[in-house]
Amino acid sequence: MAQAPVPAANKPFALAVHGGAGVISRKTITPEVEAQYRAALERALLAGYAILNRGGTSTDAVVAVIKVFEDDPLFNAGKGAVFSSEGKNELDAAIMDGKTGLAGAVAGVTTIKNPITAARAVMDKTKHVMLIGKGAEQFAVDQHLDIVDPSYFYTEYRWQQLQRAKEKNRIELDHNGKAPQAQESTVPFWQTDYKHGTVGAVALDQAGNLAAGTSTGGLTNKLYGRVGDSPIIGAGTYADNATAAISGTGTGEFYMRAVLAHEIAAKMKYAHQPLGTAVDDVIQTALTDKGGTGGVIGIDAKGNIKFGFNTEGMYRGYIKNDGKPVVAIFKEE
Amino acid sequence: MAQAPVPAANKPFALAVHGGAGVISRKTITPEVEAQYRAALERALLAGYAILNRGGTSTDAVVAVIKVFEDDPLFNAGKGAVFSSEGKNELDAAIMDGKTGLAGAVAGVTTIKNPITAARAVMDKTKHVMLIGKGAEQFAVDQHLDIVDPSYFYTEYRWQQLQRAKEKNRIELDHNGKAPQAQESTVPFWQTDYKHGTVGAVALDQAGNLAAGTSTGGLTNKLYGRVGDSPIIGAGTYADNATAAISGTGTGEFYMRAVLAHEIAAKMKYAHQPLGTAVDDVIQTALTDKGGTGGVIGIDAKGNIKFGFNTEGMYRGYIKNDGKPVVAIFKEE
Repeated sequence: MAQAPVPAANKPFALAVHGGAGVISRKTITPEVEAQYRAALERALLAGYAILNRGGTSTDAVVAVIKVFEDDPLFNAGKGAVFSSEGKNELDAAIMDGKTGLAGAVAGVTTIKNPITAARAVMDKTKHVMLIGKGAEQFAVDQHLDIVDPSYFYTEYRWQQLQRAKEKNRIELDHNGKAPQAQESTVPFWQTDYKHGTVGAVALDQAGNLAAGTSTGGLTNKLYGRVGDSPIIGAGTYADNATAAISGTGTGEFYMRAVLAHEIAAKMKYAHQPLGTAVDDVIQTALTDKGGTGGVIGIDAKGNIKFGFNTEGMYRGYIKNDGKPVVAIFKEE
Repeated sequence: MAQAPVPAANKPFALAVHGGAGVISRKTITPEVEAQYRAALERALLAGYAILNRGGTSTDAVVAVIKVFEDDPLFNAGKGAVFSSEGKNELDAAIMDGKTGLAGAVAGVTTIKNPITAARAVMDKTKHVMLIGKGAEQFAVDQHLDIVDPSYFYTEYRWQQLQRAKEKNRIELDHNGKAPQAQESTVPFWQTDYKHGTVGAVALDQAGNLAAGTSTGGLTNKLYGRVGDSPIIGAGTYADNATAAISGTGTGEFYMRAVLAHEIAAKMKYAHQPLGTAVDDVIQTALTDKGGTGGVIGIDAKGNIKFGFNTEGMYRGYIKNDGKPVVAIFKEE
């Protein structure tokens, strides 16, 4: 697509987003659903564009984008989050400011309408990086963030997804005759239900500052207060003006063990790889070799954008100064 | 100290431990307390030595060492953990296996006698990396780990520490006349009460495999379910046979933002720095420049050990094949 010239008044800026990676192909989603996702990705991109175009910060843009995703039942974050094995929606989110190196995260929260705003408040209003559970929820109350009853996060689609996951486990356990164990009663990461994933955004603002943010409802039927990579600085979320802003979506445990987002930044910083090479190395080699699946989005200080994933698809898009959102879903796009 | 020759039957192995870094000097602790810490460090080292000397794994050694620390009220982990602002002992721990790249962590747990054993069970018995709060506690029950009433963790010394911290905040708030805010009602990281810190261990076993583990009670008077660097893979705990095993202790938020343990490994892997240089760079430059304080212990695949800290002291020690524990507390040792 030919891009319009950059308006003279504006310095270059750029924004990239993802809405999850997984078994997403023209065989698994209908044209109607595909159109809904494309429209949702455009809405999110335009929300961030409005901020960046008027000279706003990359952190503001990232929060605005992720709030759009969190409010949209299509995505596994905020409203639309998957259910844990206890039938709860337990949400995680993180944000990092590449200029200051500050970061904020919340995990295991059930009453905060937009977890990304809580992550941002942790970053801006405390000396801490990560707050969890009831403590994080009390903090959100004290910060006058939007609080909702946990039932707000209920969606019929996700509830049915949980029932199918539980049924699938029961059948599998009946079949192999073994007693339930922790790992067996967790839905496999690669099941098709996982296709609707984590959301994230990375941005470069006109002042040249990077930011990254990620928000998720985690895994359907997850047990034991499991926390994935999204709220872990360095794993699913990382930003540093000296290298890049990164947000991941995929089999979170592999991202955590690989410290994946920071690994990409480290390859740029110490092995002097460009963003694209570093992402390809980590996703197509390190992650794939370990058996992990998923993707990342990255943006560097020059506004170069990289989408990397080893799945059939990833809901994704970008927008630059010309204000024209470009979205994609399938691998071959 | 001259070291005895390595017994022919044994391949080289090594173990290093820390019991916290901070305002620890001959002015702040009495000779009696100093002797208690030295004896405790030796006990921990010998527990790990027994495993490594008979050919056990580095992960087994790390767990054994940290259990000794967790059971000792001298250290801020397990029995002896500090109190949160709610008067609870909220514990975090993590372990990582440098051979497999697997890792496990728990955060915000109040009923697990030895959180390091729960972290290890997460690594060994699930596909997950991190479990938090009630979920992690239920997992520990299901795994038949030692469960205790939260009152087990009560120590009079730590309770008085909490009362002093609360009083100090009240006075400070009265003094500056400002309304309480999240960051103000948290005890400053650098206060002297922080000197009794997080514990950790890193080990190289005879098979040439590395492991790292860390356990903590966090900050006195901490609010809002704050989680520090200890249970975050890449921040306070990291191990990879290709580089090093690292465990940190200090102002956790700085470790999380810097992804400090993984940063050390990345400098070794991509900038080809030896362990000692990488640790010094990160602690004496990156951490210090940002205003963070603390230390790390590291061990590489050749058994080289590095202690790095920018505080007045760090409870620390090491042991190798000769079975003679070497411990130190003050900077000048």
